[in-house]
Amino acid sequence: MPRSPELDEFALIARHFAPLARTHPGSLGLLDDAALLDIEAGQRLVVTSDMALEGVHFGADDPPELIGRKVLRYNLSDLAAMGAAPLAYVLSLAKPEARSSEWVGALATGLGRDQEEFGIALVGGDMTLSPGPAVLSITALGQVPADGGLLRSGAQPGDAVVVSGTIGDAALGLLVKQGGISEPAASDVEYLVGRYRLPEPRVRLGQALGGIASAAIDVSDGLVADLGHIADASGVGATIDAERVPLSPAAQRALARDGRLLAKVITGGDDYELLFSVPGDRIGQIEALGPDIGVAVTRIGSIVEGSGVQVIGEDGRPLAFERQGYRHF
Amino acid sequence: MPRSPELDEFALIARHFAPLARTHPGSLGLLDDAALLDIEAGQRLVVTSDMALEGVHFGADDPPELIGRKVLRYNLSDLAAMGAAPLAYVLSLAKPEARSSEWVGALATGLGRDQEEFGIALVGGDMTLSPGPAVLSITALGQVPADGGLLRSGAQPGDAVVVSGTIGDAALGLLVKQGGISEPAASDVEYLVGRYRLPEPRVRLGQALGGIASAAIDVSDGLVADLGHIADASGVGATIDAERVPLSPAAQRALARDGRLLAKVITGGDDYELLFSVPGDRIGQIEALGPDIGVAVTRIGSIVEGSGVQVIGEDGRPLAFERQGYRHF
Repeated sequence: MPRSPELDEFALIARHFAPLARTHPGSLGLLDDAALLDIEAGQRLVVTSDMALEGVHFGADDPPELIGRKVLRYNLSDLAAMGAAPLAYVLSLAKPEARSSEWVGALATGLGRDQEEFGIALVGGDMTLSPGPAVLSITALGQVPADGGLLRSGAQPGDAVVVSGTIGDAALGLLVKQGGISEPAASDVEYLVGRYRLPEPRVRLGQALGGIASAAIDVSDGLVADLGHIADASGVGATIDAERVPLSPAAQRALARDGRLLAKVITGGDDYELLFSVPGDRIGQIEALGPDIGVAVTRIGSIVEGSGVQVIGEDGRPLAFERQGYRHF
Repeated sequence: MPRSPELDEFALIARHFAPLARTHPGSLGLLDDAALLDIEAGQRLVVTSDMALEGVHFGADDPPELIGRKVLRYNLSDLAAMGAAPLAYVLSLAKPEARSSEWVGALATGLGRDQEEFGIALVGGDMTLSPGPAVLSITALGQVPADGGLLRSGAQPGDAVVVSGTIGDAALGLLVKQGGISEPAASDVEYLVGRYRLPEPRVRLGQALGGIASAAIDVSDGLVADLGHIADASGVGATIDAERVPLSPAAQRALARDGRLLAKVITGGDDYELLFSVPGDRIGQIEALGPDIGVAVTRIGSIVEGSGVQVIGEDGRPLAFERQGYRHF
């Protein structure tokens, strides 16, 4: 790629990104044409990629510390859904001319925090000027045991449907930001908006699920839509008991005031929790997962014969939603 | 990553990109959270990434068939400079709302042609809407023998400096497009602009150089600047004999009419030829490279003690250039 004459990306990379690459010798200090990595014997490489644009996936006023972390976490959540251990990532950044070196530095600082938290290192990338919005593209690499790993396609009728953490916080957080929730408590605003701003990828849980879960996905499109992806890929149907869907105290309070928010919770997306199916004889292994996976898991439904996803209400009858996520399937 | 409600990327991916993923089982049909790849025993993974924006790296009126290929070839050229065999790539695409499904299809068609030519397959990626310019980000994966591979840092005083193909065509092609060359022949215009529009990554040569070259880089910033990168990384200096720099017939004709274009040729960049150093006792191996590497190689200079790059003119005296590439070093 030719260099942009107006952008001294050599200096920006040396100052802000080379420090992020120091922990991984395969980065070659970001000074060569590409990175070099070793994949351990008996392991398979896992590759995922996400692009985020200013004005679409993050706001022009968002703290730059959070922007890089958010995109990195989208990728980490995909690795988690494959049961993979994070290895390394490459970052391509298109920087608007008006953004300062400090803005780039804050973005890198945020990435550095997450590198430590999730055990991943920058090994390469690209930087260029953008005549329009800022653009970040991250490709993350992980590894799974050749005989392990999680796909969307292994769910079988009779399997339990399980989800991590709590569902709907991010969707409610976005709604709060848009003024769509009346008189929320300040602490609930902080919690819900925080869950929207920075997802918590379930990397340790994902790795623990290898050999236990029959299928897995991370919840980005919405609980119903993403369970639909598992059902489609596995050639089965699925049910969700609405009352079993785990809610945070903040989400419970919001729903207590306005029960119609249930649709937002169940179809809203952006949760980045893991949603997975577990054969009946392995439910005990799920319950035995220790506190070191860092998140609770809750059984919310079942895999059934057929196709599609049904959400069952308290009265035992299916609920209908205007949308099941961004995609109608 | 949450879906864009305005963009039916499921349909676009299924229609245009899933066919590109069919040749690689690790793509999982682009239907899962990530791709799964096996790296052969004794091989190291090579990772490189390039981002291109409309209005910066390609024009709004450029044929879409060429846009994806150009970005893929930037990456393939980086793999070649590492001596790597191409394995797979992931593509993230931000599509402006005004661009049609046909535009996406033409872009994919171009990528499909290059997949066949270079033996690489799409295994994953991301698609989103852009409120501004089109953006493509490609991360390419390759493999090199654990005891092979090429870095920028191995050049030693006494090594020969060798370059593939011809130099300056792309820079002159850009100049022709800008009307900066007077009365060029139509066939020269076609040749030079073609060299600018679509680089020819030297993938087979790169793989053949493992164990022969002591350092390598692909020429993107310009012949002098990129030899400077090798010199810096290796802690040495280098010389280029200007009269030995290989020129295409079209470039020779342009220089015959205007000798001042030599600076453009030597510092212009965008060549995507391989530039490498070879110890004296291995020169014979370079000369013995057969026609199957698909490109001629030419000795143009030497690695010397010291630092920096000197270009020696016909009279044996150093030439001075206003710029040595986009970067002053």
